[in-house]
Amino acid sequence: MEEGTRSGPLTGLRVLEIGHFIAAPFGTRLLADLGADVIKIEPPTGDPIRQWGTHVDGNSPWWSQHARNKRCITLDLKHPSATEIVLGLAASSDAVIENFRPGQLARLGFGPDVLRGARADLVIAHVSGYGQDGPYKDRASFGVIGESIGGLRHLSDHAPGMSDLPPVRVGVSIGDSIAGLYAAFGVMSALWQRDRAGGDARPRSLDVALNESVLSMMEGMLPEFGALGTIKQPTGSRIATAAPTSAYAASDGKWVLIAGNSEPLFARLVKAMGRPELAEDPRFIGNQARVENVEVLDKIIGDWTATFTAADLLDRLTEADIPSSLVYTAADIATDPQYRQRGMVQDVEDPLFGSVLQAGIVPGIPEDPGRIRWPGPPLGAHNDEVLGELLDMTADDIESLRQNGAI
Amino acid sequence: MEEGTRSGPLTGLRVLEIGHFIAAPFGTRLLADLGADVIKIEPPTGDPIRQWGTHVDGNSPWWSQHARNKRCITLDLKHPSATEIVLGLAASSDAVIENFRPGQLARLGFGPDVLRGARADLVIAHVSGYGQDGPYKDRASFGVIGESIGGLRHLSDHAPGMSDLPPVRVGVSIGDSIAGLYAAFGVMSALWQRDRAGGDARPRSLDVALNESVLSMMEGMLPEFGALGTIKQPTGSRIATAAPTSAYAASDGKWVLIAGNSEPLFARLVKAMGRPELAEDPRFIGNQARVENVEVLDKIIGDWTATFTAADLLDRLTEADIPSSLVYTAADIATDPQYRQRGMVQDVEDPLFGSVLQAGIVPGIPEDPGRIRWPGPPLGAHNDEVLGELLDMTADDIESLRQNGAI
Repeated sequence: MEEGTRSGPLTGLRVLEIGHFIAAPFGTRLLADLGADVIKIEPPTGDPIRQWGTHVDGNSPWWSQHARNKRCITLDLKHPSATEIVLGLAASSDAVIENFRPGQLARLGFGPDVLRGARADLVIAHVSGYGQDGPYKDRASFGVIGESIGGLRHLSDHAPGMSDLPPVRVGVSIGDSIAGLYAAFGVMSALWQRDRAGGDARPRSLDVALNESVLSMMEGMLPEFGALGTIKQPTGSRIATAAPTSAYAASDGKWVLIAGNSEPLFARLVKAMGRPELAEDPRFIGNQARVENVEVLDKIIGDWTATFTAADLLDRLTEADIPSSLVYTAADIATDPQYRQRGMVQDVEDPLFGSVLQAGIVPGIPEDPGRIRWPGPPLGAHNDEVLGELLDMTADDIESLRQNGAI
Repeated sequence: MEEGTRSGPLTGLRVLEIGHFIAAPFGTRLLADLGADVIKIEPPTGDPIRQWGTHVDGNSPWWSQHARNKRCITLDLKHPSATEIVLGLAASSDAVIENFRPGQLARLGFGPDVLRGARADLVIAHVSGYGQDGPYKDRASFGVIGESIGGLRHLSDHAPGMSDLPPVRVGVSIGDSIAGLYAAFGVMSALWQRDRAGGDARPRSLDVALNESVLSMMEGMLPEFGALGTIKQPTGSRIATAAPTSAYAASDGKWVLIAGNSEPLFARLVKAMGRPELAEDPRFIGNQARVENVEVLDKIIGDWTATFTAADLLDRLTEADIPSSLVYTAADIATDPQYRQRGMVQDVEDPLFGSVLQAGIVPGIPEDPGRIRWPGPPLGAHNDEVLGELLDMTADDIESLRQNGAI
C-alpha cells in the first residue's frame, strides 16, 4: 500500500486489531476511516461476523462496510508460530484493540506485559461486556445485555400501561458500536498524550465496558433517581416534559415526527391544522397544560395527520416552519439528497458485488477528509502484503505458514 | 485551579465550548472527564438545559453531571466586549467546540477565520443537526429528528403488524450524545496529528452531524438495502436472525432478557425449564427452525418465565449458564455491585445537594484515570478565575464587565 493512497488525520498511525463481532472492529474501522493503517487478525476460519446478516452469492454486504479500509490477515493464535507474528506486528503498531473476554488474550500468551515487551509504549484497549474487573467480569455479554444493564432497554418502550409487549431492541447492537466509538476516542486521547512534545513511553490502557458506555448516555436518569428516588420510565414516542412532540401516522401508514412544543410552534401548528382556536384552549395553553392533556391533544393531531399522505403532510409542516421529519427507512436514507451531497451515502466499488451502498465517514473533516479506500477484504487478503512488509517474510516463509496451518 | 488537581491523559489540553443543550456539551464533558481544562461560555441567562429535567430547590441534578469538570463563564456574545474575551480565550485554547446552527457563530463575528486569527492552529469542531453544508443545513433539528433521519427510530418498534402504537423514542436524546462523542473523537484525532512530532499548524475542522452520527451505527441496514432492496424492519424485542432471544415477563412484571440461540444454549435452557424434549422437537432443531417458529417458542418460554419472580428466574438462568439479565431501571443500576466497584456509579459531592448520584467516566484508564473533580457549577462560577487567569483582567475590569451586562 502506498502512502499516497491514504488520507485523513490518522495517516501514519498503525493499529493492530485482535477483535471480532462488532464492538472492537467498529472502533478500529473508525480509525481506519480517518486514515490509520489497521491490521485485523482473524482466525483462519474468519471473524464469525462474516456470516452475519444477509448474503449475496455467499458474500456479505455488511462486511463490505464493516471491515473497509482494514488490512485483514489470518492467524491461528494457538499455533506455535503465532507468537513471532503477533509480537512482530505489535512492535510496529501504536495501539492494540481487542475484545476477547477479560484475561483470554493473556491466557493465549498475549497479555499486556508480553505485548509491551515488543513495544514499550503500546496503547492497549480492552473492550468487553462488563469491564476488566469487578464481580461480573467473566459473564457472557452481548449488545442486548449491555443495553439492558446500561438502562437503554427499559426506556425503549411505551409508557407503563400502554402495551403488554416487551420493551424493544433498537434494531441494531448500538451498545457495541457506542463502546467501539469510546475505544477509538480513548485510544486517540492516550496517543495524543504519548506522542505530543513532552510525551513519554509509559504504558497506557483503556478499559471500555459495553454497559458503562450505554449508561454514560442516559442523561439525568441516575442523578434524578439519586436526588428524588424517581425511576425514569419510558414514554413511548413522546417526551415526558414537552408536548406536542411525537410520531403521528399519515394516511399511507408512514410515521411523521412533529415537534410543536413551544408557544410559537404550537400556534403555527394549530393554524396549519385549520384549528387556530386550539391555541386559545385552556387545555393547551402553555407546555405544562399540554403535557397534562397530551392524550387528547395527540388524538386531535393524529386525526389531522391521518388525512394526508406523509409527503403532503411534510409539505404543510415545512411550509408552516414546524420542526418535523419522516421516520426514515433504509430506502428513504438511500435516496436522500442531503446524505448524497455530503458523501454520507456512497456507492463503493467492491469486486465481490460491483458496488455496495455504504454509510460514509464520521466525523467529516473538510481540510483532510477520511476516505473509503477499499471495501471489507476477503479472508486473508493481506497475508502476503502484511507479513512481507512488516515482518520481512519471504514468499517461502509465508507459504510454509500456510502449509502448517498457522495462517 | 492547580495543575495537581487534574488527572487523566488530557491534562494540559484546553478546550473552549461555545455550546448549549446536549451534543457539544456532552462531547466537551468527555474531554473534561479525561483531564482537559474545558471553558464553557454561557449567555448571562444560562444554558437553557439548566432548566431541563426535574429540579430540587431550583437546582438540577442532571446539570451536576452534565457540566461537571468544566469551568463555566457567562458572556453575551453580542456585547461589544465579547470580541476581546472570545478571542483571548481562543488564543489560549487548543480547540473550540460549538453547536449553533451552521453559520450563526460567524454571523456573531466568530467565524473560523476570526478565531484562527487569534490562534492559527486552533481545531474547530462544529456539531449540528444536518452538517455545515447541503440542502438541509439550515433546518431545525433535535435529537429525535436526527435519530429519525438516521434510521434508528424506524427500527425502535415492534414488528410490522404487532402494534398500532408509534415507534418509540429510546428515552434519551441518544443522537445528541453520540454526535458529541464523535466530536470528542474527531478533536483528539485532529490534535494528535497537529501536536505529534512532525505535526504542523494547518487549520483543522470537524463537521459532525446528528443524523450522520446515528446512521453510522446502523450496521448492515444500508449495504443490505443496496444489494437486495430489502428495507430493514423492526423486530420488537427479538433479533430477526436468532431465536430464542428476547425479553420475557416474570411474575412480578419485570422483564428478563434471555439469549438461548445456539444449540448448546438452547439445550440448557429447555432443560432448566424442565422441558428437555423441546430440544428434540423438529420445530426447534437448529436456529433457522427456531426463527421460523419463534411465535410458539416465545409463548412456551414466556409461560415458563411468568411462573417465577425475576430474581428467582435469574438465579435459575445463571445456574444453567444461559446469557441473561434483568432489564435494569435506574434503581437497579444505582445498587448494582459491578457499577459500584468500578466507580461507574458514584456519589459526588455537590454543595447544592450534599451529594449527587452520577455515572462515572468512560473510557476507564487504569494507569491514569479521569476523575470527577467538581460537579456542574453555578452560572458564572468561574468568571473571575478564568478572566483573571487567562486574560489578565483585574477585579475592577471584571466588575465593569458585570456592570455593563457583558457577563
